[in-house]
Amino acid sequence: MSATDDAIAYAQAHRDDFVNELIEFLSIPSVSTLPEHAGDIQRTAEWLVAQLERMGMNNVAIMPTGGHPVVYGEWLGAPDKPTALVYGHYDVQPPDPLDEWETPPFEPTIRDDYVFARGASDMKSQIFGLLKALESLVKQGDPPLNLKFVLEGEEEVGSPNLAGFLKEHADMLKADFVLNCDSAIYAPDQPSLVCSLRGLAYFELHVRGARQDLHSGMFGGVVHNPAQVLCELIGAMHDSDGRVTLPGFYDKVRTLTDEDREDIAKSAKSDERWLEMSGAPGLWGEKGYTPTERVGVRPTLDVNGIISGFTGEGSKTVLPAKAMAKISCRLVADQDPKEVKEQLETFIRERIPETVTWDLKQFAGAPPGFTDRSTPWMKHAEAAMLEVFGKEPLFVRQGGTIPIVGYMKTILGIDSVLMGFGLPDDRIHGPNERQYLPNLHKGIETYIRYLDRISK
Amino acid sequence: MSATDDAIAYAQAHRDDFVNELIEFLSIPSVSTLPEHAGDIQRTAEWLVAQLERMGMNNVAIMPTGGHPVVYGEWLGAPDKPTALVYGHYDVQPPDPLDEWETPPFEPTIRDDYVFARGASDMKSQIFGLLKALESLVKQGDPPLNLKFVLEGEEEVGSPNLAGFLKEHADMLKADFVLNCDSAIYAPDQPSLVCSLRGLAYFELHVRGARQDLHSGMFGGVVHNPAQVLCELIGAMHDSDGRVTLPGFYDKVRTLTDEDREDIAKSAKSDERWLEMSGAPGLWGEKGYTPTERVGVRPTLDVNGIISGFTGEGSKTVLPAKAMAKISCRLVADQDPKEVKEQLETFIRERIPETVTWDLKQFAGAPPGFTDRSTPWMKHAEAAMLEVFGKEPLFVRQGGTIPIVGYMKTILGIDSVLMGFGLPDDRIHGPNERQYLPNLHKGIETYIRYLDRISK
Repeated sequence: MSATDDAIAYAQAHRDDFVNELIEFLSIPSVSTLPEHAGDIQRTAEWLVAQLERMGMNNVAIMPTGGHPVVYGEWLGAPDKPTALVYGHYDVQPPDPLDEWETPPFEPTIRDDYVFARGASDMKSQIFGLLKALESLVKQGDPPLNLKFVLEGEEEVGSPNLAGFLKEHADMLKADFVLNCDSAIYAPDQPSLVCSLRGLAYFELHVRGARQDLHSGMFGGVVHNPAQVLCELIGAMHDSDGRVTLPGFYDKVRTLTDEDREDIAKSAKSDERWLEMSGAPGLWGEKGYTPTERVGVRPTLDVNGIISGFTGEGSKTVLPAKAMAKISCRLVADQDPKEVKEQLETFIRERIPETVTWDLKQFAGAPPGFTDRSTPWMKHAEAAMLEVFGKEPLFVRQGGTIPIVGYMKTILGIDSVLMGFGLPDDRIHGPNERQYLPNLHKGIETYIRYLDRISK
Repeated sequence: MSATDDAIAYAQAHRDDFVNELIEFLSIPSVSTLPEHAGDIQRTAEWLVAQLERMGMNNVAIMPTGGHPVVYGEWLGAPDKPTALVYGHYDVQPPDPLDEWETPPFEPTIRDDYVFARGASDMKSQIFGLLKALESLVKQGDPPLNLKFVLEGEEEVGSPNLAGFLKEHADMLKADFVLNCDSAIYAPDQPSLVCSLRGLAYFELHVRGARQDLHSGMFGGVVHNPAQVLCELIGAMHDSDGRVTLPGFYDKVRTLTDEDREDIAKSAKSDERWLEMSGAPGLWGEKGYTPTERVGVRPTLDVNGIISGFTGEGSKTVLPAKAMAKISCRLVADQDPKEVKEQLETFIRERIPETVTWDLKQFAGAPPGFTDRSTPWMKHAEAAMLEVFGKEPLFVRQGGTIPIVGYMKTILGIDSVLMGFGLPDDRIHGPNERQYLPNLHKGIETYIRYLDRISK
């Protein structure tokens, strides 16, 4: 038996141990957006340090940034082998709405081959899978290639400090390719690799009217209701064809070629599958494109949140003083988050009445991203997936955003391979997030074969 | 000196005591809409029982209803005199947003001749003023007329059990007129009497999309965003002239006559005054009407609250599963809250896409109300106000809703006189609600003179 076979045998023999360890990892509520979880973020970083040290990594450290720290570690014992920069994030989305979870988000629970927990799929199981692949390999001897780990704690808040970290430590982080584990595959038995990602522009729009909340009987009809104004603005952001109406929004969007459409059709989901995955009463979106095209290669605008006035139980006849909406756009090549902000500002300025005041904040965003399919790192990824799943992976245009892919390319000049083993219906960012455990184990095996292939 | 003069002298001598007692009353957080305040509602009712007993009222009782109780008390010792049914409510609006109060809402604080507290103007100071007028009178001997008190605890939630209470106790509640203290005057030195009230139709509209919150990257562009749909609906509820677009909404609205407009102009506030009172950057409303007309005799539609998705700090790229808005209409003669519900349902049904589901709840509402100016009860009110303030009262069309005025007329067949001494900029239902204390004292004197006049 080869070292790879031994590593795979080790992984198979330790499946239960791995799951128990994963549950420990998932139990720490490392919610990056809520200040009260700062201690949990620290505990999670320490948990990862212990893992990396156990696997013989050197220079393991919790490295400070302007926000949550980066966990770093490296093994550089094979000067003639390639170097992989492993990227992952150990933070998770907030778990609300809490009352919709069947079991508490930070008490991981196994049901029907799934583990349910916030962060299960996005992305603790993925980075955990890579660590367990490495553990399986180092039990047989030295790691098969050089490794550098960058595990950040701010992905779910838009990685505001990662670009700075990469710039500051550019020398230390030199590598041949990035292995970014923050990903999923097409279906339990159909592996896939991401070949493009949508970018993100995220905004908070505030509209203010009266000095303070007023009585709607005494002022209704005289003072402009900021919730109404905000709704009128948002209500005008799409036309009847489902297209975004921000001026110039589509100007830089690349026209889809017939070849693109054929390729996308290979990994397209049926309407029934989209309906089943979402539980929505019907599908919706930009006219003239299939659902998979709309998610993969067309830009969108969504209200992520809106709040104004009294929203408790019962009735309160208030005329609210202010209204706020979180609005974000998923971007495709060659859109730019800064330009989208200008488009949104123009849209608001042209429409908003002088009876209210407003301001627009922009949060961290990301440009759309690409992956070159012809690199050895992608070719080996294809081969490793074929070996473990028995099927050629599909190439998918992913609707989500991984700003780090752009940073790795623009700051460090390194291409990323996105390889992770979540599933599209894992409910990431929503209640009852889950990870399919058979995929965790297949993922570990795929990572083992992938690292081994690259080393040869 | 007459008994009235003695009563007024008593009231003047006890001003400080009265204010201290009012502070005690205002300190009890009798928020009717929040279940956790049920005990405070009970304490407030007991506080009123003690007051009524001290003033020699008979059959004083906390009478159960399907919701919060009614405090009842009566004095029927003057068979040859008229009987006044005094109406008031001892519940208050929720105090939120709490962080906008300069001093805590239930720690009444005096600054610049105002007492600041939730319920200060709406309406604890008003019912308290009437009680202190009565106290001043009974210190001189028997009350000058027969009295029945109905003090309810559910006005701020739409008086859902009051109609039933009035029906059940119709015999007990027989009276010549209702003295409803839930009111305000035009300005500190300008008394006024209400001659019409707007009605209310209050709704909660729910729009639902996916089974649960989704990742906006993975589903944005495929699943219809219920917050967007809700905004599109609300955004279409007004046209560019500020008119409500529900089908048939204005069909039953009476046309304003030139006489009406002249009369309204007498108590009209200037644009500057409306701006100053509201602190809004500009005025807004239905084209073709003055602000005072729009508030007094024109119907309106307001968003009282809206919520969907993630509204905490930072960014969360969620595609929400549901969105909710509280929407209410102020109604004028001859609109009907039930018909407005049908109009809103038709509006939604005609516009909402099949990619979402929806439902519409209606809360307790009220028809628009009127007061006949020629009754003795109104004539005496005019005279008492003239005596105390030295000015003829104005007759105002009030924009707010007092469902009880309609109930008193339709269930008991009794006309209401609305006499209270709040002010238009008392910030009722908003943060930093207040009562102008000189008006409390003038109000007590006016009540004394009013009750005395009626008894003669």
